[in-house]
Order: sequence, then C-alpha cells, then structure tokens
Amino acid sequence: MIPMVEVRRGGVTESVHHGVAVVAGADGRLLHAWGDPDLLTFPRSSLKPFQALSLVESGAADGLDAAHLALACASHRAEPFQVRMVEEWLGRLGRPESALVCGPALPMGEGDLADALRAGGKRRVFHNCSGKHCGFLAAAAAFGAPEGYERPDHPAQAHWLGALSELIGQDAAALPRGTDGCGLPALAMTVADAARAAARYAALAVQDSRREAAIRRLLAALREHPDHVSGRGRPTSRIVAATGGRVVLKEGAEGFVLGFVPEMGLGIAVKILDGASRGKMAVFATILGRLGLLPAERAAELARAVEAPVLDSNNRAVGEVAALALG
Amino acid sequence: MIPMVEVRRGGVTESVHHGVAVVAGADGRLLHAWGDPDLLTFPRSSLKPFQALSLVESGAADGLDAAHLALACASHRAEPFQVRMVEEWLGRLGRPESALVCGPALPMGEGDLADALRAGGKRRVFHNCSGKHCGFLAAAAAFGAPEGYERPDHPAQAHWLGALSELIGQDAAALPRGTDGCGLPALAMTVADAARAAARYAALAVQDSRREAAIRRLLAALREHPDHVSGRGRPTSRIVAATGGRVVLKEGAEGFVLGFVPEMGLGIAVKILDGASRGKMAVFATILGRLGLLPAERAAELARAVEAPVLDSNNRAVGEVAALALG
Repeated sequence: MIPMVEVRRGGVTESVHHGVAVVAGADGRLLHAWGDPDLLTFPRSSLKPFQALSLVESGAADGLDAAHLALACASHRAEPFQVRMVEEWLGRLGRPESALVCGPALPMGEGDLADALRAGGKRRVFHNCSGKHCGFLAAAAAFGAPEGYERPDHPAQAHWLGALSELIGQDAAALPRGTDGCGLPALAMTVADAARAAARYAALAVQDSRREAAIRRLLAALREHPDHVSGRGRPTSRIVAATGGRVVLKEGAEGFVLGFVPEMGLGIAVKILDGASRGKMAVFATILGRLGLLPAERAAELARAVEAPVLDSNNRAVGEVAALALG
Repeated sequence: MIPMVEVRRGGVTESVHHGVAVVAGADGRLLHAWGDPDLLTFPRSSLKPFQALSLVESGAADGLDAAHLALACASHRAEPFQVRMVEEWLGRLGRPESALVCGPALPMGEGDLADALRAGGKRRVFHNCSGKHCGFLAAAAAFGAPEGYERPDHPAQAHWLGALSELIGQDAAALPRGTDGCGLPALAMTVADAARAAARYAALAVQDSRREAAIRRLLAALREHPDHVSGRGRPTSRIVAATGGRVVLKEGAEGFVLGFVPEMGLGIAVKILDGASRGKMAVFATILGRLGLLPAERAAELARAVEAPVLDSNNRAVGEVAALALG
C-alpha cells in the first residue's frame, strides 16, 4: 500500500489516502505499478466508455453527435446544459423519464441543487448516469429489445461485455459482479486489468474495423466534450485541456480514475483504496508528469489545481489536499 | 496500519479503510492500541466536551439545563428541534445569528435540507457547531469579553485549553494548531493522548472540585441527550442506548470518535486514517465488545446497525460497510 495523498490542516497532516496506480501498455505489460496491481475492485463509472460501445456498435448512435457520445460516457453533475440534453435525447427516443432505470437524484452543484429542490426535488434525469442510460435505451431499441436494458443478459449489456472481453483478453461475463449505484451491473476486476483494457482501447487494439471506428469516435468525444463527461471547469476538463487532448479520462465512484493515452497506447488506472474522491485527480496528474506527458512543474501545478483546498465554513482556506511524490 | 472497515458490493470488497484505535486508562496506560497510537491528527469535534468546560466553569451554564450542555457539545444535523434550541439560546443571550462565528451551512437531513433551501438557504444556526458557538458566546460574556471568542488568546479559548492541559498532562496551548471547519482553533494531538484525555475526563481525574462537577454535569448531558449531540436515531444515540448510558461518545470530522467510559475510567479513541466517516462507528462498537461493555454478539449487531448499507439510487441495498475483527 502506497500513501498517495495527504490532507493537511494548518500545515499538519490530518488524514492520508493510500492507493494503487498502474500504467499499462496495449501489449498487457505494466510500465509502472504503485501498490498491488492485482487488487480486485470495481472501476465503476470508469467503464462507461466501454459500456458506450453498445450504443455506437449497435448503430443507435448513427444520428448522434460527439456531445451525445460524451454524455453517454458521463458521470455528469446535472448542470442545466446536461439535463437539457438528456431531456432532448429522451424526446428523440420517444421515451418518458420513467424509462430510465437510474433512480431519482439531485444535481451536485450547490446552486443547481437549490434550484432543483425549489422546482420539485429529485428526478431521474438528474442522476449522474442518466446520459449512459439514454445510451442504453437507444442501444436496446436498436437491438430490438427496448425493455429491460438493466438485466445482465439483455443484448445491450451482453454486447459491451463481449467488447470488454476482447479488450481484457478474458471473459468479462465471468468477472465478479455487483450492482452499481444506478442499478446496472457493476464488474470487478484488478486495477491492472482495468489499465490494460484502457491501453488497448487507447491503442485501438481490436480485431474488427467497426469496433475500431466506434472506439475512435468515443475517444474523440471524450477529448472534445470533457465538460459533458463531468462538468464545466471540473478536473476532467482541466486535465484534458492541460494535455491538449493527448490524454482523456473517465472517473468512477469510490476513488477510481481511468486514463487513455492514444499516442502512447497507454492506459492509466488509479484506485484510492478507501474509496475517496479527493486526491485521486491529483494522483492522476502526478502520473502524467511521470510519463512525460506534462513537464514536471506543470504536472505539479495541475495536481494542485484539480483539488479544492480545505475550506472552513466562512470559505477561508485552512488546509490542502496534496498528492505525494510517487516512488 | 490496521485494516478496520471493508466496503463490499455484491459480496466483493470494493474499498478498505485503515485506522488507529486506542483504549487508555486514567493513569495514562494504553490497554489496547491497534495501529500507531502516536499518530498525530486532529480530534476535531471530539474535543467539544472539553471546549464546553469554558461554558460550565465560567458559570455561564448556571441557568441552563442538560439539553443545552449536550447542544454545546454537539455536531448536530440542524434538525428542527436543534435549530429551535439554538435560536432560543441566542435569544436568551440577546445576540443575533450573525454573532456566531461558524459560517452559513445547510441542514444534513434530506428533508430538512429541502425545507431550508425553500425557506431561503444557508444560515449560521444550521452549522453543526452552532450549539458550541452559543456556548462560547455565553462563556465569553461570563468572562467579560463578549467579542472575539474565536481568537486563540480569548479567555474563553484559553480557559478550556487550561483544562485540557490538566487532562493531557502537557501544555495544550503548545500543541500544533489549525483552524476547524467552524473557524475556531483546532488542536492536533496523538490518538493516544486523545484517549488519555477522555479517560481522565471519564474518571473525573482532576484536582479541582469545581472542574469535577463541571465534567460530571457534561457527562450526564452526553448520556441523557445523545439526540441533541448528533441527531435522532443516529449512531451516537444508538450506542448510548445499547450500553444503557455506560458509554458516551463524541464524533469528530475526518474519521474521529472519542468514547468515555466512566465506570471503568477508560477513554477510547478511533481515527480512520483517510478521514472517512463511514465505518468509524462500527469500529467503535466493535471495541465495546472487546472491552466487555457489550456481549460479543450484541456488539457485532450494533456494529451493523450503526452503518447504513450501500444503496443504489432506487434504494436497494447493494452492499455493506463492515467492521473487521480487531486483532
């Protein structure tokens, strides 16, 4: 176990996050491993770019633009522009909000949350996975099975599991399984296997040209619309901008981040062992420095920029969340 | 570092929390230490029962009842009964809400939060420390220095630091210091010293009979009004109820819990290393079993009862937060 993040108050360390981080190549080789690469965990929403292969390869994305694909990969914050797009997409599909399996939720931003509560409270379109669920609704229709897309044996689930099987070189349907926050199946895999899958995705290391085109389209969407993938001004957008789009990424709940580096054919997986979100993006930025994707000083600056300071309730900074150097 | 809590999804471990736990006697001896007892960290709000000594020993609590003292020790959830009591207390003091140094905040409960947002948003009385701040306002007036109670050199701060110095056997004013979320000074100390301070507090191991009476009154308040200290049905109330009031406790931010066992003269300190709140109360309950304060089976049951299951967004249980056996 490697200490990766310190939370300091008044200069004194108050809490520490340990983690595992792996950089893999498309050949499956691990270029770096901090902590145990064989740690089994759930990449959670970091798998959305893989899940979206059902949407694209089914043909259901043919009339959609890159922003829709980004939204299908998103863990969004229910910012108004994101909610409008989900509503518009449901309209195109001719489906009601109740067709979304993800449960009612509230927006994440303080102002949006207040607006939502004043307007009536929780809604399914506000759920951070509602874009993904639109994608599955679209794919399910294209597969001729519009209902039940949440079932592990539904064609829309089986399809992306097949794609993931190719990318991880093992039967993804046989991986340990739980249920994600949004009600869809969640897969467990090692941090190393998650990094390998990302590397092969980034390198377009697949047999079928249709799949290659689908991945290429999804990588472009993640690069062009990071605001849709997370939210405006969020760490995901800052990291894509800082690397000029050379790196794209998708975070997952419980401290996961998955990075894709097409030009190097690399995948980067970070898991904060305790499941915290804070610090994980700073660890990710630190790794970009180690890989030479950013100058060391720029990586350190980015690591600071993507973590909010520790504030008191009068909004004074009273501490910081700092990524530690990786040995 | 000791793994203390596992978060499981579909039976598979998703995240792990490590921690430090110490049981100390009033003589300063450590009866148990899991992990490094000399870990330096901030007990945060677990120090409120010590801070409240300024309120009681200054004489400012003479007209107050036990529920007020519990509120002065509280990290409350801004439930309506708690907010009303803070407002009533401010009224007694003849001070406006703006006299509270703690910043504007929102209630923690979902329904209370929605009500607050509809009623106008954040308020200082909603801050989880607003009861403590009423206590300091009262003490500051009694010390003849009604303004500036947040300053480390204010008599209301200096007084409890003096009391803490007696309890930890060292100059508390010399401890490393940060700023707490509510704007007051936060003290850093080792987990062992926090447990020792709690043991001496529980054992009434002080020189002065006035201080002894003050501590006795505060321990009674923590025992009689745990709902005021945290909130109705919360883990704090469940643990006090499960032990028939033989154990009282105060949680702090960033994964801290401090327990007081008057009949045994013991103090219990738990710090989840990564600062998580989840799991810490289950660890605390587990320790009560180890100390024989609860039968093993009852302690295990309590450990499960004080942790919410992992839910999906449709409120189905999809995982659990489980305390691990302590070696």
